Amino acid sequence: MTGRVTILTGGVGGAKLVLGLCHAIPADQVTAIVNTGDDFKHLGLSISPDIDTLLYTLAAKANVVQGWGRENESWNFMEAVRSLGGEHWFQLGDGDLALHVLRTHQLGNGQTTSQVVAGFAAAWGIKTRILPMSDDPVTTRVETSDGLLDFQEYFVRRRCEPELKAIRFDGSQQARPAPGVLESIIDPQCQAILVAPSNPFLSIDPILAVPGIREALATASAPVVAVSPVVNGASVKGPTAKLMKELGLVVSAGTIAAHYEGVINGLLIDRRDPPLELPIASARADTLMHTLNDRINVARAALDLAETLRR
Amino acid sequence: MTGRVTILTGGVGGAKLVLGLCHAIPADQVTAIVNTGDDFKHLGLSISPDIDTLLYTLAAKANVVQGWGRENESWNFMEAVRSLGGEHWFQLGDGDLALHVLRTHQLGNGQTTSQVVAGFAAAWGIKTRILPMSDDPVTTRVETSDGLLDFQEYFVRRRCEPELKAIRFDGSQQARPAPGVLESIIDPQCQAILVAPSNPFLSIDPILAVPGIREALATASAPVVAVSPVVNGASVKGPTAKLMKELGLVVSAGTIAAHYEGVINGLLIDRRDPPLELPIASARADTLMHTLNDRINVARAALDLAETLRR
Repeated sequence: MTGRVTILTGGVGGAKLVLGLCHAIPADQVTAIVNTGDDFKHLGLSISPDIDTLLYTLAAKANVVQGWGRENESWNFMEAVRSLGGEHWFQLGDGDLALHVLRTHQLGNGQTTSQVVAGFAAAWGIKTRILPMSDDPVTTRVETSDGLLDFQEYFVRRRCEPELKAIRFDGSQQARPAPGVLESIIDPQCQAILVAPSNPFLSIDPILAVPGIREALATASAPVVAVSPVVNGASVKGPTAKLMKELGLVVSAGTIAAHYEGVINGLLIDRRDPPLELPIASARADTLMHTLNDRINVARAALDLAETLRR
Repeated sequence: MTGRVTILTGGVGGAKLVLGLCHAIPADQVTAIVNTGDDFKHLGLSISPDIDTLLYTLAAKANVVQGWGRENESWNFMEAVRSLGGEHWFQLGDGDLALHVLRTHQLGNGQTTSQVVAGFAAAWGIKTRILPMSDDPVTTRVETSDGLLDFQEYFVRRRCEPELKAIRFDGSQQARPAPGVLESIIDPQCQAILVAPSNPFLSIDPILAVPGIREALATASAPVVAVSPVVNGASVKGPTAKLMKELGLVVSAGTIAAHYEGVINGLLIDRRDPPLELPIASARADTLMHTLNDRINVARAALDLAETLRR
């Protein structure tokens, strides 16, 4: 396959597929549109978890065992914060702090999130174009059995324990897609648009909530193919399955297809999934991504499905 | 000696004497008024070098070999900043960052420097009262052969190499002494006021430039005794001697006495100094402070001189 590919992503699973994609086709042909609904301020620092996970993954600096943050990280900052009585429920590694301190400083000087991320990516030699979904603030909040919680409060501090009732993306109605986002979707050179196997409700929906993005996907000439985050009735990682049950949904690829109705043209589902009829095109593959080869193979399978759907 | 003691201080030498003083008398009887003219913003973080040096020294966390920062420090943050193309001429250790990040956050939330410092000191079990000279911004800048430089630019980045022509304390005329500063000086329970052997021009003068402090010292009932930073025609540490020469001054205890005229009642000079006549009371001691015992001895010698000067 030649041509450009745009991928919507968030979280660790999404970053894995982007990495595979950047090996399946030239990295400089890939545009990643990244969820920033998880962005938050902590100890006065501006933190962009999904963008940073992607930066670390593409720069080969990710801590793959831990699943978040940098490899070879040290924790002297956190220890000192603790000794000073500061908040310590959100772990900030010493090396990781550089992204947060520099981002906070640059945003304070009037740069946009897009500009900050582009600078980081360039410094680390990342050729993939990384775009935040928006340079405007969009804040994911969850209504739970314990009341309204900020996303990190729910996800990190409370470990997704409170029962989830609804999800909202505060600010999304006023948010504009970041520069390049719509262009990368409607680009005639774009051969396929992928939706990573990220949490559809927490990682992809915030992107779709930014006015203009859903409409661009519907009118794009390139086929839109999602990789299902469900494997044989369970989620691979993270709270997707728990959350789907709390929302009264069946944990299946069929639910994913229905959730993305009107957005995707095809769904790549796991070969372990039970037989099912879908209203859209689908293909099967081993969607577990333990090794780099796995990731490349999933990316190729998604691109192959897209190739059959060219409009 | 019983009763309270107030000490004006800045820098590493000053912190050493405060530590000695806190062993010579009960630490909770000591009030340290600290230079904040060196405070600056770096990478968006609020940094208070002299306050932090004192915090580290009194909490037994100072890196005594290096002369600044924390012991057992790691440098992963700086390495990551460098990889991202960020400014790296001012070294920020991983553990050290906790003070800067928390301070910046707390100041941003409306706390004063006094409140921030009191919180840090309490968290680390420091009984000495540490007061910034002012909660208002005072910025030391130096006029040099290379033009006007911010203090850290001159002191750290340029290693004091440009020839110094004049020193100014921008903002000092509008600054008010921090809560407790004047009270600690005119306190009838105060038995002695010490001026640490810090750089008189860069560390003590900013304190004296805050309106009200010089006047309070002149009217205080307690004697004011300075420890000379000059030892036998040289400065113990730092750029004091170089700076005095550039300002056209003789590097001697006599110059120190003249500089503090109207402020101090007595001067503790080093036993190695040549004989000299001073217009104020003086005493001699070994003022080098390598060990904790040295520091306690210098503090005691200064207190003894003060004792003879009680008004």
